[in-house]
Amino acid sequence: MEAPRSVPQKGLEHVVMGDSTIAYVGGETGELHYRGFAIDTLARSASFEGVVHLLVQGRPPGPAELDRLTADLASRRALPAGVLRVLDALPPGLDPLEAMRTGLSALGDGTFPAPPTREQGLTLIAQAPTLLARHVRRSRGLAPVAPRPDLGHAANYLWMLTGEEPSAAASRALEQYLILLADHGMNASTFALRVVLSTGSDLVSAATAALGALKGPAHGGAPARVAAMLDAIGRASAAPGWIEATLARKERLYGFGHRAYKTEDPRAIVLHAIARAIASSDRLALAEAVEREALAALERQRAGRRLYTNVEYYGAVALESVGLPPALFTPTFAVARTAGWAAHALEQVGDNRLIRPDVRYVGPPTGRAWPAEVARG
Amino acid sequence: MEAPRSVPQKGLEHVVMGDSTIAYVGGETGELHYRGFAIDTLARSASFEGVVHLLVQGRPPGPAELDRLTADLASRRALPAGVLRVLDALPPGLDPLEAMRTGLSALGDGTFPAPPTREQGLTLIAQAPTLLARHVRRSRGLAPVAPRPDLGHAANYLWMLTGEEPSAAASRALEQYLILLADHGMNASTFALRVVLSTGSDLVSAATAALGALKGPAHGGAPARVAAMLDAIGRASAAPGWIEATLARKERLYGFGHRAYKTEDPRAIVLHAIARAIASSDRLALAEAVEREALAALERQRAGRRLYTNVEYYGAVALESVGLPPALFTPTFAVARTAGWAAHALEQVGDNRLIRPDVRYVGPPTGRAWPAEVARG
Repeated sequence: MEAPRSVPQKGLEHVVMGDSTIAYVGGETGELHYRGFAIDTLARSASFEGVVHLLVQGRPPGPAELDRLTADLASRRALPAGVLRVLDALPPGLDPLEAMRTGLSALGDGTFPAPPTREQGLTLIAQAPTLLARHVRRSRGLAPVAPRPDLGHAANYLWMLTGEEPSAAASRALEQYLILLADHGMNASTFALRVVLSTGSDLVSAATAALGALKGPAHGGAPARVAAMLDAIGRASAAPGWIEATLARKERLYGFGHRAYKTEDPRAIVLHAIARAIASSDRLALAEAVEREALAALERQRAGRRLYTNVEYYGAVALESVGLPPALFTPTFAVARTAGWAAHALEQVGDNRLIRPDVRYVGPPTGRAWPAEVARG
Repeated sequence: MEAPRSVPQKGLEHVVMGDSTIAYVGGETGELHYRGFAIDTLARSASFEGVVHLLVQGRPPGPAELDRLTADLASRRALPAGVLRVLDALPPGLDPLEAMRTGLSALGDGTFPAPPTREQGLTLIAQAPTLLARHVRRSRGLAPVAPRPDLGHAANYLWMLTGEEPSAAASRALEQYLILLADHGMNASTFALRVVLSTGSDLVSAATAALGALKGPAHGGAPARVAAMLDAIGRASAAPGWIEATLARKERLYGFGHRAYKTEDPRAIVLHAIARAIASSDRLALAEAVEREALAALERQRAGRRLYTNVEYYGAVALESVGLPPALFTPTFAVARTAGWAAHALEQVGDNRLIRPDVRYVGPPTGRAWPAEVARG
């Protein structure tokens, strides 16, 4: 027998699995920085393409570099014919995250050999919205809309979904959302991506795995429920009663609490500002009333648990205000996170080691005899 | 700023991420047990279906249970029409692992809702060979062969690949291979599966992620190179010179060394016996000569590193002897491992917690100002 194992660290919380230069997450102080730039600074001042440069190249672009990267990303948006065939073989109406996972996997047609490269990362970032928009339009019985190279990443995503040129306000709000959600250090999807890459596998396999992790409600899968909750409450004056009744039934409120943050999530603050700028006054009033009542009720119920409004709450209000349906909230989060995935993929393969923790065996004693009545002759 | 982080545990080696009752891996003693049954006992005495029952249900079946499970698995082999459409949209000739990843993802058509169930696990196990065989035959320009419910899992896999009834010896050798590779505790693919499930995501997302991890050469992606190495050496008498020259060029020998085992891998011992039973005498003599010379040369080169023949080495000889081409070695490993994935999926969701380790931020100082020349207006 082996030496006794140490006590399990369930969920690997507080286990430090390596060094990273990509994101600083200050859970106690409510900070998020990409390569040293605070998230509110980036949301205010940078384009999504500038943040892609920052994450993937490791530093902000110069003006000519930004122009080149913007053009480069735009040039990569169209999908190969083989990927189109797979997308068009999916059942129309299939959940967009399921379609996106299969679409991402289908990018693996031999053009993403391991190890990941910067160019592969840019292709992943550029093509994720194209995959998604094509499936969404097909599910609605609409013809696909070709990408427009003159539009930025966020505006082009809205264009491919709707076939209409989006307003500057909607494009910019979505762009800020994409910046805010582009990375978050060692979140579960990025960790899944790194586990896959650590075996020497390829970027498509890793991004497909990451999307699968992001699909889970504990990571990326719940913002649609925020919108459903607001719809169910209906008006600001109904918030206190609805929330009390929900908590009395021991049901969840959506949009509050985050494993990393023990104070206000810095992204939630920016998303609240975006919602103030673009949401309808009724929806904003409802969202703010529900937030106020929910935080007060949660504090009464579980004082000291430090639950704050998370990124999903005003994220949902912002995304619905730019015209996205709730079914696209989590897929749009995935569109944003491809930038972080590309950066983490390059960091992982730059200094790789197989990621493989251990478990403590607590099963039956070893050396059992297989029952004779089900044994092979 | 946060309190200083502890030292990173790169690759999470020796980090214990939880308890498991599925597999005991004794790396120092060369032991592998599934739920207390030694791997050589299982390979000798159990059917693959019996091992599926053991892994997924947690105990060996009784005779009636084994019959029911065998019939149940056989009844799940046919693929839904939607999945067939996706497979037939893939480029013929696409790498079987890429096709299998997209095929697994396409199983997610709404019939695998989270959380994973035993029935979903059985469907995954039953359909993995069907996906693979269909793509392989299509790539060869051949019509698909429908599964045969009267054949066991291993024999039916060979049947669907070739359209010919396999010999009892080949079927049993493949069945033993599938038993030996069905699980290995917290390997990288199983870990990827658990990371994905820990977010509340579904079994198809998790198995797709697991396949992506298994695709990497450090996990499942190298057995074809063993066959290529044996082909390159050609005959037993050439082994010493070839191996010396390869090591002198600082190139790798394939099929030796494993992160877990510091002694003989118990699976390798059984696979060697299988190879002795079914390989041609020339191929066996070559493989044994190469093994002998390689171990001696590695020991001379790096005394004390305790490199032993791993599961890939005689696994490759066994699989080629049952008629599988090298391109199917790793996919066949994946076919085996779906059994372990199903068991781990059920264990994970039975006592779930988000798996999300931390990283130590070592990037630029925080609070940088975004360059004015690339700032948005």
